[in-house]
Amino acid sequence: MNTDLTPSELRQRIRSGEHTGNTSGYCPGYVQCNMTILPKDWANEFLQFCQQNPKPCPVLGMADAGSWEIPALAENLDIRSDIPSYRVFRDGELEQEVSDISELWQDDFVTFMLGCSFSFEEALISDGLEVRNVTENCNVPMYRTNVACTPAGRFSGNMVMSMRPYLPADAIRAIQICTRFPAVHGSPLHLGDPDLIGIADINKPEFGDAVTINANELPVFWACGVTPQVALEQAKPPICITHSPGCMLVTDVRNSKLAVM
Amino acid sequence: MNTDLTPSELRQRIRSGEHTGNTSGYCPGYVQCNMTILPKDWANEFLQFCQQNPKPCPVLGMADAGSWEIPALAENLDIRSDIPSYRVFRDGELEQEVSDISELWQDDFVTFMLGCSFSFEEALISDGLEVRNVTENCNVPMYRTNVACTPAGRFSGNMVMSMRPYLPADAIRAIQICTRFPAVHGSPLHLGDPDLIGIADINKPEFGDAVTINANELPVFWACGVTPQVALEQAKPPICITHSPGCMLVTDVRNSKLAVM
Repeated sequence: MNTDLTPSELRQRIRSGEHTGNTSGYCPGYVQCNMTILPKDWANEFLQFCQQNPKPCPVLGMADAGSWEIPALAENLDIRSDIPSYRVFRDGELEQEVSDISELWQDDFVTFMLGCSFSFEEALISDGLEVRNVTENCNVPMYRTNVACTPAGRFSGNMVMSMRPYLPADAIRAIQICTRFPAVHGSPLHLGDPDLIGIADINKPEFGDAVTINANELPVFWACGVTPQVALEQAKPPICITHSPGCMLVTDVRNSKLAVM
Repeated sequence: MNTDLTPSELRQRIRSGEHTGNTSGYCPGYVQCNMTILPKDWANEFLQFCQQNPKPCPVLGMADAGSWEIPALAENLDIRSDIPSYRVFRDGELEQEVSDISELWQDDFVTFMLGCSFSFEEALISDGLEVRNVTENCNVPMYRTNVACTPAGRFSGNMVMSMRPYLPADAIRAIQICTRFPAVHGSPLHLGDPDLIGIADINKPEFGDAVTINANELPVFWACGVTPQVALEQAKPPICITHSPGCMLVTDVRNSKLAVM
């Protein structure tokens, strides 16, 4: 993996087809984003849903209707080609996975970029804390919970949460670190007994992979960016395009810029 | 209880003997302090012990040797009479409890004022969190743990921690709030399984009173100002004077001024 690439260079390689697949581990120090594209007549309700549920759906940037640029996040961005893999949903069903959406583009498309856990995982690791899914080289385990999102228009659903296990003192430190980053899911929402948030079996995540939980470790739960995907599947807009898991927009914004203090 | 008194007025009433007993609940919004007085040849080591163990022993103010004034904490302070009750220890043993120490005063006495949990309890309650020992109108439960303090000279010992129970989401919020107040014990040090810090029976605190822990609540543990008392009992200085439990120095400093952000 070439981790010396600037975000702009990586996006160029993605656009040209030279880089395919995951962006995880590339451009350390820079914010990567979850992406959602919706037609304009669904976008306002989705924005309202995000604003009412900022922990799972932190909006870092938006493009105007029909635009593939978000200058505040990335220079010379072309949303249609600068992400390695896109998922196209029609009426809430996954239709296809493609590496370029130029041919699918509509003038009424509104693009949302949402904060992602890569940013706070980097802050945890920088502080000397282990991130178990990174250590075990797998996807973070994610669970459907019984915690309801605040509905907005046609969007509703329960929150999905990701889990990282920590010894109690490290859990306290992780809460402090993540509190500084409200734009990338912020502080955890729960820790300890998974049953209290409706998780029946901690070893069977609905998304991602199970990770080892050692003796004396508490599972610590964060709001997860899969939450809006679940809400989108329920709302069933005629068309919706997202990034494929792990294939994110790599921005020019440094993670440290997201720290509120 | 007259909660309209200014700190200065309350200290005046304590000095004149008009107010005796606890200061808890008086002068809401103002910092109250734990006090320790030691002869100069013990004071440097005690200061070093506090500096190396800032969570249980946060020094908010010090008086010069022989001085009974700390202008940064309180105007017109007379340390010898402005605390409702003093405990006099000789060679580590409690000798007497008095309401004035003018006759015991030595020119080499150095006074330390340490932060106390009243300040962060007020911040928790202001945020809408319950503080169980306040609700149940009893002393906070405090436990001897197996967590060693960093020794300094003749001072050493294990940490004493106080405990307040919270549901997980409230525990996370309590960590955030107390992180803002490092000068009054700061963030908790542990939560969950008491056995991990050497507490055999959560219902039998060594100091203070047991409180109710409801279903689904986690015990949350903070470093406690009783820790230096335990270190002092072990070090056995020839003379040491402290406040009596609950009978604190009421300062002119607002609790909010202790917030680091």
